Amino acid sequence: MTPEEFRKYGYRVVDWIADYRGKVSKLPVMARTGPGEVKACLPCDPPDTAEPFDQIFRDLDEIILPGLSHWQHPRFFGYFPSNALLASVLGDYLSTGLGVLGLSWQSSPALTELEEVVTEWMRRMMGLSSEWSGVIEDTASTSTLVALLCAREKATKYGLSRGGLQGEEHPLVVYVCTHSHSSVEKAALLAGFGRNNLRVVAHDGVQAMRVESLREAVEKDIAAGAIPTAIVATTGTTATTALDPVAAIAEVAREYGIWLHLDAAMAGSAMILPECRWMWDGVEGADSLVVNVHKWLGAAFDCSLYYVRDPEHLLRVMSTNPSFLQSAADGRVKNLRDWGLPLGRRFRALKLWLLIREQGVAGLQARIRRDLENAKWFAEQVRAAPDWSVLAPVPLQTVCVRHAPPGLAGDALDRHTLDWVERINRSGEAYLTPAVLDGRWMVRVSIGAAPTEREDVAALWALMRRMAETRGGF
Amino acid sequence: MTPEEFRKYGYRVVDWIADYRGKVSKLPVMARTGPGEVKACLPCDPPDTAEPFDQIFRDLDEIILPGLSHWQHPRFFGYFPSNALLASVLGDYLSTGLGVLGLSWQSSPALTELEEVVTEWMRRMMGLSSEWSGVIEDTASTSTLVALLCAREKATKYGLSRGGLQGEEHPLVVYVCTHSHSSVEKAALLAGFGRNNLRVVAHDGVQAMRVESLREAVEKDIAAGAIPTAIVATTGTTATTALDPVAAIAEVAREYGIWLHLDAAMAGSAMILPECRWMWDGVEGADSLVVNVHKWLGAAFDCSLYYVRDPEHLLRVMSTNPSFLQSAADGRVKNLRDWGLPLGRRFRALKLWLLIREQGVAGLQARIRRDLENAKWFAEQVRAAPDWSVLAPVPLQTVCVRHAPPGLAGDALDRHTLDWVERINRSGEAYLTPAVLDGRWMVRVSIGAAPTEREDVAALWALMRRMAETRGGF
Repeated sequence: MTPEEFRKYGYRVVDWIADYRGKVSKLPVMARTGPGEVKACLPCDPPDTAEPFDQIFRDLDEIILPGLSHWQHPRFFGYFPSNALLASVLGDYLSTGLGVLGLSWQSSPALTELEEVVTEWMRRMMGLSSEWSGVIEDTASTSTLVALLCAREKATKYGLSRGGLQGEEHPLVVYVCTHSHSSVEKAALLAGFGRNNLRVVAHDGVQAMRVESLREAVEKDIAAGAIPTAIVATTGTTATTALDPVAAIAEVAREYGIWLHLDAAMAGSAMILPECRWMWDGVEGADSLVVNVHKWLGAAFDCSLYYVRDPEHLLRVMSTNPSFLQSAADGRVKNLRDWGLPLGRRFRALKLWLLIREQGVAGLQARIRRDLENAKWFAEQVRAAPDWSVLAPVPLQTVCVRHAPPGLAGDALDRHTLDWVERINRSGEAYLTPAVLDGRWMVRVSIGAAPTEREDVAALWALMRRMAETRGGF
Repeated sequence: MTPEEFRKYGYRVVDWIADYRGKVSKLPVMARTGPGEVKACLPCDPPDTAEPFDQIFRDLDEIILPGLSHWQHPRFFGYFPSNALLASVLGDYLSTGLGVLGLSWQSSPALTELEEVVTEWMRRMMGLSSEWSGVIEDTASTSTLVALLCAREKATKYGLSRGGLQGEEHPLVVYVCTHSHSSVEKAALLAGFGRNNLRVVAHDGVQAMRVESLREAVEKDIAAGAIPTAIVATTGTTATTALDPVAAIAEVAREYGIWLHLDAAMAGSAMILPECRWMWDGVEGADSLVVNVHKWLGAAFDCSLYYVRDPEHLLRVMSTNPSFLQSAADGRVKNLRDWGLPLGRRFRALKLWLLIREQGVAGLQARIRRDLENAKWFAEQVRAAPDWSVLAPVPLQTVCVRHAPPGLAGDALDRHTLDWVERINRSGEAYLTPAVLDGRWMVRVSIGAAPTEREDVAALWALMRRMAETRGGF
């Protein structure tokens, strides 16, 4: 494809996406495709010779599009929002079209330096002190794995240069909470700590980590000869957006010399609002933190910001320096390959840069505030309706609800919950994610898709009442 | 930004990229920017209010573009090629614009199923048996880390569910070669094995792993009570594209029950040519392998294919299943979050799908063959010139050269090498990567950027002669 053909088909792709974003609100939110249906429409063998673009566009319309659940739909209330604001999309288009890589600073200086600039912008926007340095990773799963690897190496005084985790006499222990994200446990297991050395600290009545339980666990481990190594606290858990008491946890971490990693993947976006920063009060006591600007804030996926207070430590664990990557500029520049797992690096800063510039901080703040207001309004409606309840505090944009008609409890209530949410999802009119809270199914209403306005939330609420309160399938 | 504004600015971005690709051959290949120069042009603070797109485009032209080294330039001979063919770029544009995520099959069925289809296409294209299943990871660094984590868990019978790597009595050992990629050592250290348990097996006269040395090391470790856990072999090393003897290594792996991971990140693209498959003869004896289709083949970065023969094993190590990710389809579908580190997943299959369809297998093969021919031609020129030598076999597209005028040796020769390559890079007329081979600097000429034709290689050769043979800076 020549640049001129690219211009022609590029326009067509832009048109296709513009049309898609224009009409997405009219599509069923959740794909209606059954398992294997997309695959069955596609040939098993690759084409031997070039195919015309018209055929590709036809397949996009006929096979791919019906197989998608639409995350950019105004009635997408599932998981957490993964907003890809159109300015950010254009930033990513620039990155992909340029096709430059950041293996080292020299391999494309602007790639590294713009990443320094935008992570610094975000640091300021979130009110973090200048003690923090940031880098862009793909996801919070990776950022948290990096944090736990660094914690492991700090605790062993860089055992990776000796016997690794195999050379340790005293077991290293990681502390998480019942409501930590699944990726935290996964990261701890992948980092080699082992499930036996993972302490799942109990939560309190609002799904936040019990600091007394944490302290007890730490002291018990120390008494048993183990080495408390890392604590992962969360600002905005996945099930209920619960807020672990960061300041109190940081106090324990400081007292016992434990690495504190803060998972603010979701809530971090709200920290651009000064009125929300109480939620991670104590953040300056953490050693590392992750904020997914590809969630609520609106940067096109993937764009997870990982901040640390001691980059030297990170470098010591992650650094590689083969001859083919050395350059005369080393020592005077950041080589971001030493800040994470992969060597190769896209120009991801562009999508965050365009997002912030096109929206302005004020524009981003206004949208986050809109969503907070919508969640508050929605929670009020639910609380006021008979048989409905809001199951957890609503500090952010997720409202956890259950509809419990009189006489319905236990497994029957679970069946009712899963039934009405499944009917909503199948209707195509909205998308919701059910989840288990304290052993029982409930429904998470995660507000904050970029095009979601009050009327969408109101329509969802009407739909929920209709689906849950009628049919009486119990 | 509304969809209609996106259409307008999207056209402009497409134009900007089309113009860039059209004029890139006239730009200096390596950025002339000094450390900190890009940063110095950008404000420390984010804009409070929205900025006009015109200003963003001006900054792109004036600040970003001069700060880039151009990987899509026909005279880019550095590192390895990272081709972003324009059809693949458009595939990525679709992905970013759609903004859908593959947290689970249900969260966008076509995302998962198209990934199954294209990894299957590539499997067939590379002549691999149907025993292999593939998934898209970001980079080979990650793919290799995943492989070593799986090997670790297999060797400990899933110690992650008990004491992790901390619970093992006998040390687990990983075998690499002197010429393995830096990411392999990094992965072994991050996986917790420890440098003391990393055996760097010697290479032979053509930079390939010595199988006798491997066997000796394995037997010595077993005698000492250690557990040989993983071997990483390479098809196409970074320094010289050396080919480890996969069949013989696989025999050792089989005999001692060791996980064999094959790093074919670079050479894998050439496996779409039947005449090249002798290079990884024995591949069916490996347990896992990685092929970066974002390198030579032309998929826009990042697109690293990871194949395994036993997905159940992979799932057992990587799987998470929190309630909010469960759906009625589980059990009948692939949930790709269980195939790698991150939970979140872009629709990366689109960029590979469009690449293969727009080029056709024959088109991709023709370009790879062109590059192989160009490398062969270039090596012949070098060999025929006085004082020049080709330092390693040229099975693929990288030619390792040195210019050694009479009387020049040792450190003085190193200074000469680094001097002429630096002058070439600074000239902007071509980009080359120096590297160390057997303790001395040499220059890698890595042919295979998509727009590189014979005339570009010839021009490079003339430039090299001019720069190295004149000035007499020694």
